[in-house]
Amino acid sequence: MIVADRPCAAAGVFTVNKVIGAPVVVAKRHARLGRAQAIVCNSGIANDATGPLGERNAVETCELVAKHTAILGGDRRLVLPASTGVIGVQLPMEKVRAGVAKLAPRLGRGVKADAAAAKAIMTTDLVPKQALRSLRLGRGAGKRVRIGGICKGSGMIAPNMATMLVFITTDAAISAAMLRVALKRAVGQTFNRMSVDQHTSPSDMVLVLASGAAGNTAINKAGADYDKFEAALTDLCGDLAYQIVQDGEGATRVVRVRVLNAKSQKDADRVGKAVVDSPLVKTAVHGADPNWGRIVTAAGYSGAKVDPDKLTLHIGGGPAKAKFPGAGGGKGVCVFRRGQPAAVNRAGLGRVTRAMKSKEVVLTLDMGLGDAGSEWLGCDLSRQYIAINADYTT
Amino acid sequence: MIVADRPCAAAGVFTVNKVIGAPVVVAKRHARLGRAQAIVCNSGIANDATGPLGERNAVETCELVAKHTAILGGDRRLVLPASTGVIGVQLPMEKVRAGVAKLAPRLGRGVKADAAAAKAIMTTDLVPKQALRSLRLGRGAGKRVRIGGICKGSGMIAPNMATMLVFITTDAAISAAMLRVALKRAVGQTFNRMSVDQHTSPSDMVLVLASGAAGNTAINKAGADYDKFEAALTDLCGDLAYQIVQDGEGATRVVRVRVLNAKSQKDADRVGKAVVDSPLVKTAVHGADPNWGRIVTAAGYSGAKVDPDKLTLHIGGGPAKAKFPGAGGGKGVCVFRRGQPAAVNRAGLGRVTRAMKSKEVVLTLDMGLGDAGSEWLGCDLSRQYIAINADYTT
Repeated sequence: MIVADRPCAAAGVFTVNKVIGAPVVVAKRHARLGRAQAIVCNSGIANDATGPLGERNAVETCELVAKHTAILGGDRRLVLPASTGVIGVQLPMEKVRAGVAKLAPRLGRGVKADAAAAKAIMTTDLVPKQALRSLRLGRGAGKRVRIGGICKGSGMIAPNMATMLVFITTDAAISAAMLRVALKRAVGQTFNRMSVDQHTSPSDMVLVLASGAAGNTAINKAGADYDKFEAALTDLCGDLAYQIVQDGEGATRVVRVRVLNAKSQKDADRVGKAVVDSPLVKTAVHGADPNWGRIVTAAGYSGAKVDPDKLTLHIGGGPAKAKFPGAGGGKGVCVFRRGQPAAVNRAGLGRVTRAMKSKEVVLTLDMGLGDAGSEWLGCDLSRQYIAINADYTT
Repeated sequence: MIVADRPCAAAGVFTVNKVIGAPVVVAKRHARLGRAQAIVCNSGIANDATGPLGERNAVETCELVAKHTAILGGDRRLVLPASTGVIGVQLPMEKVRAGVAKLAPRLGRGVKADAAAAKAIMTTDLVPKQALRSLRLGRGAGKRVRIGGICKGSGMIAPNMATMLVFITTDAAISAAMLRVALKRAVGQTFNRMSVDQHTSPSDMVLVLASGAAGNTAINKAGADYDKFEAALTDLCGDLAYQIVQDGEGATRVVRVRVLNAKSQKDADRVGKAVVDSPLVKTAVHGADPNWGRIVTAAGYSGAKVDPDKLTLHIGGGPAKAKFPGAGGGKGVCVFRRGQPAAVNRAGLGRVTRAMKSKEVVLTLDMGLGDAGSEWLGCDLSRQYIAINADYTT
């Protein structure tokens, strides 16, 4: 349970799967009000595909939290529920009732409590995931504002969203409307551009609560303060997204795909997603094999406009003058240039081999067709992924 | 090499990947003429992503075949080239020249030669793949017509097409135009509805040569003879497609997904493809785990119209009165009915377990939204797939 000392501005982004879990239905309904004070999450059972009884259980969970904590007026609509775990099983409500009653008087604060919450929401995750950012808002020295986040996610990770739960809290003063805009934009550039196994989960959500305790002049329109807040939130989400792919089920390496100079933003995203999702690219990365034919042909079937004669691939970095912001820096080795294998000398081969063996493998595809770009995160596919998912049972 | 004793009506269906191999470019150009006499294929190097030199090599290969065999007028345009193997490497033309010269005088016929050809085109395939159909066309007793096919394909298999090469020969007399129609329809229902690993390969094609040696009244318009021919061709393609998924890299089981009562044909195909491609469904099948939440949520993210409250899933068979032709027969066990877990008794659980452990796992999704249907073939995802693809090197 995450409980604020006062009602907060609230916003959420939810899975686009059409078979959605009961907690998603209820959290969406409550988050739409723009105001919330608590988040309650259980791990082990997803409460998905559970029909009307599942929804009643999610609502009762909110009621329990409102009753047992200092939620304003005991209002269950100030509570946002989330669940993660096996699909198609009903929540054991006796355990939930006893759990909420036991947990409410023991709520802590500070680093230890944060770590406990991050650990409590894990399923197949190997490590808990947290991130913190601080910034100053307002004129002069301004007010110090913090944004903290915890998340879980390891398998069933794909946009939009993933078996991924992200809970962000901030003491910033910001209106629910602006918070919603900032969250949507931050998520679009981070969590919606990563994939562990392309299976968009039915349970997932990113929630943010903003208490206003920092005392900054409230952000209620576009401007410098809003921009700073959005940048810090995006940065924090990017950090958490990276932690998720790094802890992808069975993953041993992160894959970063930079798509440059695509015809359109949609095309850049299609190429990025096709490359990080291809089982053949993922297994090649696992084997540290620079089998670049798999990478360029994944672009070829992505659905994006592709002209092979303009297509160029670097392994290990991007062209210095990338048009996509942030994708510059680090000259990789060109292995495929405008439709043909590039000549790579012995030193270049050594650099390619090192790049493929590193903890983060960077692949830069220059489409040569326009000026849109995109950056996607994925991971390799290992025997361990099979072991985890062939045995994780209903 | 497959060489006919006379020029044949010819048709082909080719990969839709935008990064296509040189043999695909050349074979497409030659097949468009509607007439061909030979097919030449090498395994080991795909001659993809090889630029103008790659294309010159594919053309030269056709010239060599025309020169060394009894091809009418030595015309290279009567030869259809194909290659399969590693991407981005040029063909060693010295070997190709020597090979064609050596092979041409040794061309055989009959069962032994067929088997040798099916074996010669293998890459990561564990078994050669062949199928044969015969039918009678024309009035009265009619003429006996045969259709034979060989194919290869195991990884990089997804519509449209796959690292899949299919060569079909028939002695039927049929015009190139009708042959093209029949092939397109047969492929649409078979090879384009299977997936091993969703990676549409750049090399792939289905070619058919029809010699007319059977002496049937030539099929040059729609009618009973055309219908019989198309049905036999579709049946043959379905047989070969099944052999491909069965021999999918690392596969231990075939997955057959029947989608019933979808809103549209496109939606039925989206659901079928999403389910057979989901790594979580594939690993669950590998572990013989009836983790049906993964199946219904794959439908949920497929992009098709889905109403969870109308969605029903059977494992092990389909409803007796399926609207999709051929999908009836064999009552499976209902595990999810109209948005909720279905009560399954002990006997039912036993049947589900047996169904999940069989060599072919049948999953039937009734969307409850319309009357469109589709049947897709896939396979499980095993550690062996990772081993094969992390080590198959450039």
